[in-house]
Amino acid sequence: MLSTLSLHILTASASDPDPLQDFCIPNTEFSSTRTTRFNIVTCKNPKEVSPEDFVFSGIKSPGNFSDTGFSAISVNPVVFPGLNTLGMSLVRADLKAGGINAPHFHPRATEIAYVVQGKVYSGFVDSKNRVFAKIIEQGEVMVFPRGLVHFQMKVGKSPATILGSFNSQNPGTHKIPNIIFGSGVNDELLEKAFGLSLEQISVMRRKLIFPKKQSKF
Amino acid sequence: MLSTLSLHILTASASDPDPLQDFCIPNTEFSSTRTTRFNIVTCKNPKEVSPEDFVFSGIKSPGNFSDTGFSAISVNPVVFPGLNTLGMSLVRADLKAGGINAPHFHPRATEIAYVVQGKVYSGFVDSKNRVFAKIIEQGEVMVFPRGLVHFQMKVGKSPATILGSFNSQNPGTHKIPNIIFGSGVNDELLEKAFGLSLEQISVMRRKLIFPKKQSKF
Amino acid sequence: MLSTLSLHILTASASDPDPLQDFCIPNTEFSSTRTTRFNIVTCKNPKEVSPEDFVFSGIKSPGNFSDTGFSAISVNPVVFPGLNTLGMSLVRADLKAGGINAPHFHPRATEIAYVVQGKVYSGFVDSKNRVFAKIIEQGEVMVFPRGLVHFQMKVGKSPATILGSFNSQNPGTHKIPNIIFGSGVNDELLEKAFGLSLEQISVMRRKLIFPKKQSKF
Amino acid sequence: MLSTLSLHILTASASDPDPLQDFCIPNTEFSSTRTTRFNIVTCKNPKEVSPEDFVFSGIKSPGNFSDTGFSAISVNPVVFPGLNTLGMSLVRADLKAGGINAPHFHPRATEIAYVVQGKVYSGFVDSKNRVFAKIIEQGEVMVFPRGLVHFQMKVGKSPATILGSFNSQNPGTHKIPNIIFGSGVNDELLEKAFGLSLEQISVMRRKLIFPKKQSKF
Amino acid sequence: MLSTLSLHILTASASDPDPLQDFCIPNTEFSSTRTTRFNIVTCKNPKEVSPEDFVFSGIKSPGNFSDTGFSAISVNPVVFPGLNTLGMSLVRADLKAGGINAPHFHPRATEIAYVVQGKVYSGFVDSKNRVFAKIIEQGEVMVFPRGLVHFQMKVGKSPATILGSFNSQNPGTHKIPNIIFGSGVNDELLEKAFGLSLEQISVMRRKLIFPKKQSKF
Amino acid sequence: MLSTLSLHILTASASDPDPLQDFCIPNTEFSSTRTTRFNIVTCKNPKEVSPEDFVFSGIKSPGNFSDTGFSAISVNPVVFPGLNTLGMSLVRADLKAGGINAPHFHPRATEIAYVVQGKVYSGFVDSKNRVFAKIIEQGEVMVFPRGLVHFQMKVGKSPATILGSFNSQNPGTHKIPNIIFGSGVNDELLEKAFGLSLEQISVMRRKLIFPKKQSKF
Repeated sequence: MLSTLSLHILTASASDPDPLQDFCIPNTEFSSTRTTRFNIVTCKNPKEVSPEDFVFSGIKSPGNFSDTGFSAISVNPVVFPGLNTLGMSLVRADLKAGGINAPHFHPRATEIAYVVQGKVYSGFVDSKNRVFAKIIEQGEVMVFPRGLVHFQMKVGKSPATILGSFNSQNPGTHKIPNIIFGSGVNDELLEKAFGLSLEQISVMRRKLIFPKKQSKF
Repeated sequence: MLSTLSLHILTASASDPDPLQDFCIPNTEFSSTRTTRFNIVTCKNPKEVSPEDFVFSGIKSPGNFSDTGFSAISVNPVVFPGLNTLGMSLVRADLKAGGINAPHFHPRATEIAYVVQGKVYSGFVDSKNRVFAKIIEQGEVMVFPRGLVHFQMKVGKSPATILGSFNSQNPGTHKIPNIIFGSGVNDELLEKAFGLSLEQISVMRRKLIFPKKQSKF
Repeated sequence: MLSTLSLHILTASASDPDPLQDFCIPNTEFSSTRTTRFNIVTCKNPKEVSPEDFVFSGIKSPGNFSDTGFSAISVNPVVFPGLNTLGMSLVRADLKAGGINAPHFHPRATEIAYVVQGKVYSGFVDSKNRVFAKIIEQGEVMVFPRGLVHFQMKVGKSPATILGSFNSQNPGTHKIPNIIFGSGVNDELLEKAFGLSLEQISVMRRKLIFPKKQSKF
Repeated sequence: MLSTLSLHILTASASDPDPLQDFCIPNTEFSSTRTTRFNIVTCKNPKEVSPEDFVFSGIKSPGNFSDTGFSAISVNPVVFPGLNTLGMSLVRADLKAGGINAPHFHPRATEIAYVVQGKVYSGFVDSKNRVFAKIIEQGEVMVFPRGLVHFQMKVGKSPATILGSFNSQNPGTHKIPNIIFGSGVNDELLEKAFGLSLEQISVMRRKLIFPKKQSKF
Repeated sequence: MLSTLSLHILTASASDPDPLQDFCIPNTEFSSTRTTRFNIVTCKNPKEVSPEDFVFSGIKSPGNFSDTGFSAISVNPVVFPGLNTLGMSLVRADLKAGGINAPHFHPRATEIAYVVQGKVYSGFVDSKNRVFAKIIEQGEVMVFPRGLVHFQMKVGKSPATILGSFNSQNPGTHKIPNIIFGSGVNDELLEKAFGLSLEQISVMRRKLIFPKKQSKF
Repeated sequence: MLSTLSLHILTASASDPDPLQDFCIPNTEFSSTRTTRFNIVTCKNPKEVSPEDFVFSGIKSPGNFSDTGFSAISVNPVVFPGLNTLGMSLVRADLKAGGINAPHFHPRATEIAYVVQGKVYSGFVDSKNRVFAKIIEQGEVMVFPRGLVHFQMKVGKSPATILGSFNSQNPGTHKIPNIIFGSGVNDELLEKAFGLSLEQISVMRRKLIFPKKQSKF
């Protein structure tokens, strides 16, 4: 009886549908005090919304670099409130000499990568295990279809900067090395799936779990 | 003036869109105490989510049988929290000898029915009033397109078990006999629509409203 | 091998999503000659589109009345090309004295019914078998939520005209008497589901299958 | 750290997706007392929902007329709770002799306009700057594709009444004169964009900002 | 009869839903020869797809400038086939000294504008006629919510370059001056809506219709 | 000019939206002869559709086992035409003693896995690199949220059979070992991303590319 009734409870599902109002700037002041209890984002009174809510200035310079020579600043509604409910977000990525952006995928978005400066070997793998990769340079654009594993590697000497845009406000980023070897998936399963020895897996896991310095992008 | 402002209130609409996060286990502890006031499902802190939230063990045996020899256990986010926001749900249905699953439809989902054991005469009606029906047996699958009226009837002696899966977390089930004759639709209208006498309608209504033992599936 | 390749075939699925262009007037001239072979609607060259494509004049008077005193003219992209891909359609319904619009549902749309003239007892049944019904009159509006069974019955002496609009270009109409008793669903199943005798079912079926005069709405 | 966690906060986005339940009548009683704090619409307990929630009687006569001889009554979930989450809304528009409905667009919906009485010159402009316009009269229907600028002007002597329906519960109305000249867009930009003198712009702006009598439709 | 059957014809609607395959590079070779007859985009055999299909090099330098000192290169599936079905597109916009991007809106997409170089006064108007505008400079980002009228004006001496990305493969661009005064909307209606004299309208129209040099962006 | 026109070409995008008709059985007869030219699925004339189109009998026994002791039969519209446009598909998976289903993800669907027989260690990894895994047995259900990497490993002696259902007609399967090491991703990038030597990568690649016996699931 209870269970039947509770289906009428709203599921307030988190989604990327068309917006139902002009915009919805999250009411963070309120949220910060009540988050632990209510855990729901409400919209600011539109009268208190200002132009600043729709402008973001935090990607003028690179973020911190990881061990793999990679830096990423995610621009989502948490840091840029104006994006909320509008179905888009972005990222600034930088690669130092020898830097790589390890294979990863975004389950909830296609990505358009625009090279702001430098040269990058950039590619993705489709579901038939074919690689589509190319060196792209300043002013060029590459598209990574939604959900496909993709990667980037710096080419040449000058640093590279990429602006990525996504058609979801929370595309999600699943980095393959971390997901597989830096998480805690059963050793025997990994051994069989990848043809690696337990020792090799152990080495990879130590590298990925302990330092924990790599970017989340 | 008031009305114009309130359009900015969130409609927190309950929907089956793509999820915007990995998962959202409903925060039932909180909900149970505040439901009457706030009536909204929030997500558990992901740190408190466990593997058990994504596993369901409640359909190992049939549910209670109705007068029509039918039993159904709905598996939705209320009983299996891990399903919340993921756009799917399921049902275990069992039919005793002579049992039927009366004509019904799910307005919000297509259903794939897999026969776990037994034989079932199974079918649906399209919008041109054509019946597509067939006896299906263990290991076979039938699909009931979204929103179409469908039905099942046990064939042979052994009991039958069916696993149905839906592409909505709340497909909705509208059982025709109950909707039409067990609800309270105006007698005169029913008389004209079905060519039944008031007495016949009255008999059907008594049968369907009073015992109230039939499954909700 | 074949099967793997063919997944790349487009499914050209028929849907009600947001349009990707301003409009798409179906290229009926072409379609009429090739329909049997290609079965696909293409858009007219926008240069050949005229204002007339977006105006419909065919509901100024009622359609033919059925035995139940009901008449319906569906206005969809087939008769009103301008609606194609825009996610809406409509219907003009008329009820003579004593007329009814038998219980039916639209699996793919919510309906807003506006009473152009007259008085109508109008209602729907929710998934808990509760009836929400009321007499509505000229200038009033009733909403029938998507997928719920609804019905109408003329009240008073003057004829009634209703304008219904739908949020799908092809809402689908499933009329319960016809779906259940006018289709060919197994007799034994109907007997058990509705508590009717085979004879009663046979009478209802003859009435619904043979005359075939009732409206398709 | 905080920012990563908060992405798990629900965005409760306001949207027009398929409903996940039969209906959701906004819990206005509760909302009125708590709106300023929580700003979220919850659903009434279905047991407290009545047929009246699904019927609207407020468009039997025209609303107040603006200076341009135009009157509009928007029928959305704020005034007609039954519409909530069902993806539709409507409007009654009236035009006095010489009245116009200034060029405007609805970013979130297609509109079907049905002429209840009178004659109206009615049209829209596509993205190639072509006008599709025609005089439509009582009983005729015109469709305005989603997002396209459209307009209406009374023709003949008798007043005109139009019933518009939308496939969104909050289509949004952006009236071009007000958006452009009645808002506060930079003068120099308007001067260059429209080839108007500063004086002309100033005249238009005074007219549109000060009286503020025009309808919001 | 005919009309009933043709509802089963596919509407192959053009939309921005989630893709159903990895990608779909339009089969332009085939399309070019058959377009006039079939008017439908098919996908290339995935075996013939190359990395080049997912890279675009055409926005390394600005396009042609219009009379208003504005240049725009739209990057959509027509010029960049890899974008097809992926729900995104982009634009490179350049502004010369004194240049403006006239008020316009995209009915089908939110836009994220990234300033590649220079300074731009940039803003939008919401449905309450409020302007949200600010000067943004190199490395900053502004978001224009879906369907809202927005505009840009060069500030300072150096040229400005903007990279805009959209969450639709065909966002649509409706430029207000052209839509209203450069199309052919009825003079009397414009006169009343904007409070302009017929002469003023005539001047604006000549300017906008005849030269026809303005960018399509 | 050409490019502007071709935007009006339909993109006939392959998607999983709500269906716009009752069902659409692909017209394979026609498709087989014309596929190379037109590459589009059309619907069979509904009059030629039979109950058999909605029933599938091909998963009564397991498929061929791969080297990793795993077998999968995908049930999609290619082999089960009735699923077309209905937004669902399924898979029968079998695991021999010691068998594993290597880490993989489905970018376009959530999966519900029902254990038909046996015991399976089953789990997934979320975007914070946490593993949610558990042994599930006959009659139990586990849900794998859309886009998350998941895996399975046989436990105990008896063989295991799993029925998986998806809320997409083409969920896509990306198997991590094959995508990363069996495709052709640049060696240097893999070396850096996984901390493996070139020799180790070479060994893994040979294993995954040459035998090519593993299941496509």
